[in-house]
Amino acid sequence: MFNTKLVLAYQGTNYCGFQIQTKSQDPTVQYHLDKVLSSLFNEEIKTILCSRTDSGVHANGQVVNFIHSSNKFTEQRRLVLALNAHLPYDIRVLESESMYLDFHARYHAKGKLYSYLIDNAIANRPLTNSFSYHVHKKLDFEKMVIASKYLIGTHDFSSFKGSQGATKTTVRTITRFDLTLDDQYIKIQVEGNGFLYNMVRIIVGTLIHVGMGKISPEAIKDIIEAKDRMKAGPTAPAKGLILEKIYY
Amino acid sequence: MFNTKLVLAYQGTNYCGFQIQTKSQDPTVQYHLDKVLSSLFNEEIKTILCSRTDSGVHANGQVVNFIHSSNKFTEQRRLVLALNAHLPYDIRVLESESMYLDFHARYHAKGKLYSYLIDNAIANRPLTNSFSYHVHKKLDFEKMVIASKYLIGTHDFSSFKGSQGATKTTVRTITRFDLTLDDQYIKIQVEGNGFLYNMVRIIVGTLIHVGMGKISPEAIKDIIEAKDRMKAGPTAPAKGLILEKIYY
Repeated sequence: MFNTKLVLAYQGTNYCGFQIQTKSQDPTVQYHLDKVLSSLFNEEIKTILCSRTDSGVHANGQVVNFIHSSNKFTEQRRLVLALNAHLPYDIRVLESESMYLDFHARYHAKGKLYSYLIDNAIANRPLTNSFSYHVHKKLDFEKMVIASKYLIGTHDFSSFKGSQGATKTTVRTITRFDLTLDDQYIKIQVEGNGFLYNMVRIIVGTLIHVGMGKISPEAIKDIIEAKDRMKAGPTAPAKGLILEKIYY
Repeated sequence: MFNTKLVLAYQGTNYCGFQIQTKSQDPTVQYHLDKVLSSLFNEEIKTILCSRTDSGVHANGQVVNFIHSSNKFTEQRRLVLALNAHLPYDIRVLESESMYLDFHARYHAKGKLYSYLIDNAIANRPLTNSFSYHVHKKLDFEKMVIASKYLIGTHDFSSFKGSQGATKTTVRTITRFDLTLDDQYIKIQVEGNGFLYNMVRIIVGTLIHVGMGKISPEAIKDIIEAKDRMKAGPTAPAKGLILEKIYY
């Protein structure tokens, strides 16, 4: 038996998320990936994914692993080329690595980096439209930076958790929170040991409300303490969110 | 009579260039723009464009001007919003400015900035696929930088001119030539007082051949002196090219 790890990038626009949907026939990234892998390896392959991404969310560094019995691709580069030759053009395998048998893409992940791109001008730029969220009203960047500081560290993030996703604990640690302003773009980078369902998107939606003046930067502290989803801002659209990297 | 200048951004993927084609019915950016302007101003509007862009080429800063007899949009911001409300989503008006009557988008342009994005890795990134050119083979970035230095300055660029485009002189001045390497991307920025037909794409194609080791960096000097299109490299694909800015 062999265990192979893949790093994937995809544009989520045309997919109903990453994970295969048991209840529907909607196209997912995993559906395409498992189909191509099964065909290349001549056996049924079921990838184990690190991080579910919702419908419309993109990735530059999603990770999966899969167990296979044949080792026909001893050269990892050849596996990458073969996969990309058969996958849809908006799904690409960036890297492939042979792992020890116990490696598990989800259980062994130590942290993740997400980014969110806000296009903040009267008119959005067409070239980045598919992976940014256009906010027409000028946002107060400095206030958003101040607000972001309150989110760094270990907190109970119940106020920033979508209604789905059941988890044992709602405590997570954000290790890094960077906001950069470049031309008309505000780029948000959030790194942490794990994220609750919709957590990054709710955090971004809340920061946008801070930038609009609807929430004061200091109120973030109270919102965290309230442990109440109703106190936070709206869930920002999926299209601006990118799963950038998974740390092992 | 009034004269208005517009700054436009568009994704060229779905358009047969900017300029209205007299001989065909293919969709162009200018076709959509003139149609929406004519409808908004209730008169036939024909925009004067600064720079033709070929089929598939993008823009972040194309400039046009147009003469109109009514001044119903005294507030420029309202004109921008009205235009964007009616234009296709891959064409956006970024700015509008009221100009003196003689202003001419093409004749008064003093210089232009183009960028070209090369995605140089075994697998391309899906999110930037529509505006980058994927080169699978690892390019020698340092050699490309050395080669680029020979192109700066005033030269007869006949070797880098496509067969179409008739011009009085083939002498042009490149005022700035920057190459940057960021992750798997090579970004090329070329600024000059004007460019011959396909000049930037032929320069990029030649630099790619330098990066592949097919042309030595020092040979650029000979290629310029030869004044022979056959000596330069191939024309790089349109999809990686962006008209970034026009200087007045």
